[in-house]
Amino acid sequence: MQNSLQGEFQMIKAGVIGATGYAGATLVYLLTKHADIEIVYLASHSYAGKLFSDIYPGMSDNFNIVLDEVDMTIASNKCDVLFLALPPGISTTLIDENVIKNTVVIDLGADFRLKDRELYKTWYKQEAPSQKLLNEAVYSLADLNPCDVKETNLISNPGCYTTCSILTLSPLVKYNLIESNSIIINAMSGTSGAGRSNKIANLFCEVNESVKAYGITTHRHTPEIEMALGELTDENVMIQFTPHLIPMNRGILSTCTAKLKKGVDKNMVDKAYRTLYQDSQFVHLLKDGQYPETRFVKQTNRIDISYKIDDRTGNIICVGAIDNLIKGAAGQAVQNMNLRFGLNESFGLDDLASNT
Amino acid sequence: MQNSLQGEFQMIKAGVIGATGYAGATLVYLLTKHADIEIVYLASHSYAGKLFSDIYPGMSDNFNIVLDEVDMTIASNKCDVLFLALPPGISTTLIDENVIKNTVVIDLGADFRLKDRELYKTWYKQEAPSQKLLNEAVYSLADLNPCDVKETNLISNPGCYTTCSILTLSPLVKYNLIESNSIIINAMSGTSGAGRSNKIANLFCEVNESVKAYGITTHRHTPEIEMALGELTDENVMIQFTPHLIPMNRGILSTCTAKLKKGVDKNMVDKAYRTLYQDSQFVHLLKDGQYPETRFVKQTNRIDISYKIDDRTGNIICVGAIDNLIKGAAGQAVQNMNLRFGLNESFGLDDLASNT
Amino acid sequence: MQNSLQGEFQMIKAGVIGATGYAGATLVYLLTKHADIEIVYLASHSYAGKLFSDIYPGMSDNFNIVLDEVDMTIASNKCDVLFLALPPGISTTLIDENVIKNTVVIDLGADFRLKDRELYKTWYKQEAPSQKLLNEAVYSLADLNPCDVKETNLISNPGCYTTCSILTLSPLVKYNLIESNSIIINAMSGTSGAGRSNKIANLFCEVNESVKAYGITTHRHTPEIEMALGELTDENVMIQFTPHLIPMNRGILSTCTAKLKKGVDKNMVDKAYRTLYQDSQFVHLLKDGQYPETRFVKQTNRIDISYKIDDRTGNIICVGAIDNLIKGAAGQAVQNMNLRFGLNESFGLDDLASNT
Amino acid sequence: MQNSLQGEFQMIKAGVIGATGYAGATLVYLLTKHADIEIVYLASHSYAGKLFSDIYPGMSDNFNIVLDEVDMTIASNKCDVLFLALPPGISTTLIDENVIKNTVVIDLGADFRLKDRELYKTWYKQEAPSQKLLNEAVYSLADLNPCDVKETNLISNPGCYTTCSILTLSPLVKYNLIESNSIIINAMSGTSGAGRSNKIANLFCEVNESVKAYGITTHRHTPEIEMALGELTDENVMIQFTPHLIPMNRGILSTCTAKLKKGVDKNMVDKAYRTLYQDSQFVHLLKDGQYPETRFVKQTNRIDISYKIDDRTGNIICVGAIDNLIKGAAGQAVQNMNLRFGLNESFGLDDLASNT
Repeated sequence: MQNSLQGEFQMIKAGVIGATGYAGATLVYLLTKHADIEIVYLASHSYAGKLFSDIYPGMSDNFNIVLDEVDMTIASNKCDVLFLALPPGISTTLIDENVIKNTVVIDLGADFRLKDRELYKTWYKQEAPSQKLLNEAVYSLADLNPCDVKETNLISNPGCYTTCSILTLSPLVKYNLIESNSIIINAMSGTSGAGRSNKIANLFCEVNESVKAYGITTHRHTPEIEMALGELTDENVMIQFTPHLIPMNRGILSTCTAKLKKGVDKNMVDKAYRTLYQDSQFVHLLKDGQYPETRFVKQTNRIDISYKIDDRTGNIICVGAIDNLIKGAAGQAVQNMNLRFGLNESFGLDDLASNT
Repeated sequence: MQNSLQGEFQMIKAGVIGATGYAGATLVYLLTKHADIEIVYLASHSYAGKLFSDIYPGMSDNFNIVLDEVDMTIASNKCDVLFLALPPGISTTLIDENVIKNTVVIDLGADFRLKDRELYKTWYKQEAPSQKLLNEAVYSLADLNPCDVKETNLISNPGCYTTCSILTLSPLVKYNLIESNSIIINAMSGTSGAGRSNKIANLFCEVNESVKAYGITTHRHTPEIEMALGELTDENVMIQFTPHLIPMNRGILSTCTAKLKKGVDKNMVDKAYRTLYQDSQFVHLLKDGQYPETRFVKQTNRIDISYKIDDRTGNIICVGAIDNLIKGAAGQAVQNMNLRFGLNESFGLDDLASNT
Repeated sequence: MQNSLQGEFQMIKAGVIGATGYAGATLVYLLTKHADIEIVYLASHSYAGKLFSDIYPGMSDNFNIVLDEVDMTIASNKCDVLFLALPPGISTTLIDENVIKNTVVIDLGADFRLKDRELYKTWYKQEAPSQKLLNEAVYSLADLNPCDVKETNLISNPGCYTTCSILTLSPLVKYNLIESNSIIINAMSGTSGAGRSNKIANLFCEVNESVKAYGITTHRHTPEIEMALGELTDENVMIQFTPHLIPMNRGILSTCTAKLKKGVDKNMVDKAYRTLYQDSQFVHLLKDGQYPETRFVKQTNRIDISYKIDDRTGNIICVGAIDNLIKGAAGQAVQNMNLRFGLNESFGLDDLASNT
Repeated sequence: MQNSLQGEFQMIKAGVIGATGYAGATLVYLLTKHADIEIVYLASHSYAGKLFSDIYPGMSDNFNIVLDEVDMTIASNKCDVLFLALPPGISTTLIDENVIKNTVVIDLGADFRLKDRELYKTWYKQEAPSQKLLNEAVYSLADLNPCDVKETNLISNPGCYTTCSILTLSPLVKYNLIESNSIIINAMSGTSGAGRSNKIANLFCEVNESVKAYGITTHRHTPEIEMALGELTDENVMIQFTPHLIPMNRGILSTCTAKLKKGVDKNMVDKAYRTLYQDSQFVHLLKDGQYPETRFVKQTNRIDISYKIDDRTGNIICVGAIDNLIKGAAGQAVQNMNLRFGLNESFGLDDLASNT
């Protein structure tokens, strides 16, 4: 972790709404370790009035922050930056023009990701935010578009499966190396991706020693991936996305299969990945023959990517691995905050994984 | 579990070579519980001279069978049926015409699965068995072709990923409902599939809390799936198969994606699955909206299958789940033995899964 | 599994109340496989009106039993034997003289275990059942007292930790080989022991990759162990019991440490264990130097026990392992039913563990 | 993590021998993140010649350090501090007077822990190091005796179970609150404690879904705990130590039971713990009613401790939790290095745990 060391630097005052969910709590952890940040506000509907460290004793009781009930006026007045880590539909009810006049909002939820309000309604079965707010919101995959967030007060942080899948596929789509409607994504996620809600299906004995596909044809990250990849090409992008739940806490692996265009060879693919990610500190292209494992990116903001061309079938199989709670949520949010406030994008974020 | 109850029935004398691997030990367990079977021979190169129950105390020390060094003459003379559960290439060196004159051999390994000797050499990087033995070997996916094994003394038991993938896809291929060269299979396996060998990569701390793809474009179950599906259709079958290792002991989930042919609708798909599996006790078609989880087939010889058509993309996603050690290895071998010896195919095999 | 094969035998009609909890569902599984049992009644407050197989698809949808709301009149009229698998305090409200006139009740819950009503109130913080019902209830650790249940219609099935701890310690207490107030029990349980309730603390991500002690000095199995061991000796038995939750689904290990009495040697200890358990099919005494692992008793009704004397400290350490859902709940309940109905005590119960 | 920020500070040159084991690799990770350290030497007998990042890709291939074969002359010349993370008996053969003239050695192994050479031989079944080297070696439980290491060039780092158990029990022993020969320790460890060696017993499928006790009466951490606790009191300390292996990667929980001396009450116990640990940043005493869970100390150098007096039995049960690879190995080694080199003892070490 780096330290800004800027003598007169004023600490950035940060708040987290939804602080006790898994993404929210990961944010609290990262912000606590971030040398330029002071946490001044934490809100949790479920645990208002309790100490954060009562819910997460790993913070020890030196971390004496009391959880508030959500109050956007207080929050936006207190904070230079306000992170929201909430279920779909709630950010829409909390954020308005006044809020983003006062503070920089980074929304880890889904509400501001899709630019098309009808598409949002189709996939989320609820109303989208106003067109005006959507216009102001910047969807920021930080490793692809680091400059986009510099002037906005409303940053929409990408989803977990989407971050992993889009970064894994972007070079192929951007440089027109694959048939853009042939993409099949099968992804596997640790159970923290299901959130910290007390559902029977998330109990230890229901998840352990099992694997299942879910959200087949209906998972809401589908249109987000198509939107983000679609912005890289003139062609129509259509994907088949099938997520799976596996018995581990953290991590996402995206295995993407696509038909290579005629004449595309390994050199062209290598060049595409190297070119697009030449300045991306958190994108790690593995050596030939080495493939990602989620344990090697655990607790980091890194994505590991590799790929293989199958001459027999004409397909390319590309695989990406992230930590869903860091790169797929809280880490990328901090990266976006760093970019927005003019800090080095890697401040407070780990690049190396613990080896065990 | 059923019991044959045939008064004068002679117990079938069975032997297992490779008895201490995970598939072999599962066979020993199933055969011990099988009312018509008497185990008369167990061999293990690694543990010759030891009691089986010293290696697997779950059998308790009432199970006083000593493991022999492999000796095919002794084995084939003692046994009515001889199971081999060995790494690729070893069965080839053990089985010859004399052996299969004396006893029924059921080979759980890969050597006799591929009928094309060149194809075997390409994928396995070693010599195939003789053409003569290959001609005698019957590759028996018991739920698809229950009659095939009745007259042979050399049964080749299918692989684990292959059993799961072929059964999941067969109705679509057989009734020409999908583009047969559009099949993408992503499968996830528990770690017992990697065998009981002392490799660093299989240690608890290397597997736990992680997921990885492996054998990308090169996994040896690829040509076996193409061969078995190819026999169901006149069309060329080409698949992209990508397996993954996940942190659980047992279970395989195959998620298969394919392009539906024009005009194919859900009724046609439903009818195809129902028709092909109407007499298959161990194939369980789930209700609409219900999807397989490996825990629900654990310790059973069942496969659970369901599927969904995506009108948006024109794809069908079909998912199958098995217990890799039972349906994918030892259970199917017992099923094949039952069929070969004229017993009810379900003797000694569980249909229902423990609920926890 | 054995089969009674009695030609004219009438099937025993069984019911389960609390059928969708982990213990209840395990009972349903065992009863389904039991050749002498027909399930005629299943009740679940949470899932009344649904098919049992909708909650537990591992039973497949051939298992078309609808879950009823609890009705003791209907239940006791329909069933020859009625199993209750419910949280503390509920059996007390359901069972009365009329119920046990009509049917044999086997209560897997805690209400009828402690004979001392004041003790019950102290540990359970609620009222005990009536003295009259308590007098009729037989607490049946089947492997210790197989004859006790033959004439009662109200059988109280022991707890999971208690079964494991009592069976592990009984020979030492009964033959006066240890200081009976020196017993320290540290036990570890899989998470199914916490039940199938939707508590945050039981979520996969809260349990996985962690271990904790809980219920320190207050766990309700403490007085039950003291009561059962106390009946074996004239001495006062006082134990220190500390349970732990570990990240696995099933299994309990009890590690018990006690001070040996002066002059006690290994031969005396060996003889005590062998004598007490000479007729106990489900108690497995391991060889010297071999120690229990819960995986070796998984899905069985067996307990594995071993012990070691430490000459340096004068202590004996004895270790027992069971499957908490089978031996510690549903399996012992079936064993008690077998004994009550005059069947072989092992009908429908597994002795050998799957080897993987 | 803190940063020393000392302008003219020379980076400390560090080396690790046994760098690819789990403790060694954790050291490499911690040293990489430590702002005052430059890694100049890594040795591994098993992987000499390979890149460290080939074995641990989580470090990414920017970490281009090649593993050397062990050479103590080179190592001790290159390094200001040299960490050894090796199996018992090997450090003895590598360390001599010349080595510790050149460099500060911190031995994470067992060879220099026991001061009594006969005791070492009894428990380790091999010869102890020379008396002269033993005299120079300082056994340093950093949180108890932070000053001890300041002048030695040979620091013996405590074991994992021992660190957890000694810190949990020390206040009770030091202030004479318990019968010092009544201590029963039952500890549970994650599987990384078994090391990164390719043994069948450490395979995923052998460890997962199971728990076992091991090393009963013979575990080598027994005399180390007795030695360290014995130094705090005039009384004879005798413990019964029983470790258990549980299915998780990291973490140790020590549950310690002891007989309180007459007249000892909760206030006296509270005062003992608070007094002894008032200056210990890494010892965290939990609130009444809160108990340690290993997940809350994961990846930290902290120990969480709590305790409860059982008035009924007169025992105290105290529980400690650490991360075996950090506090129980590499973290404490870094803490010892910090103390030895006059740095803040917490440099490069985490105090707060990630919340998920």
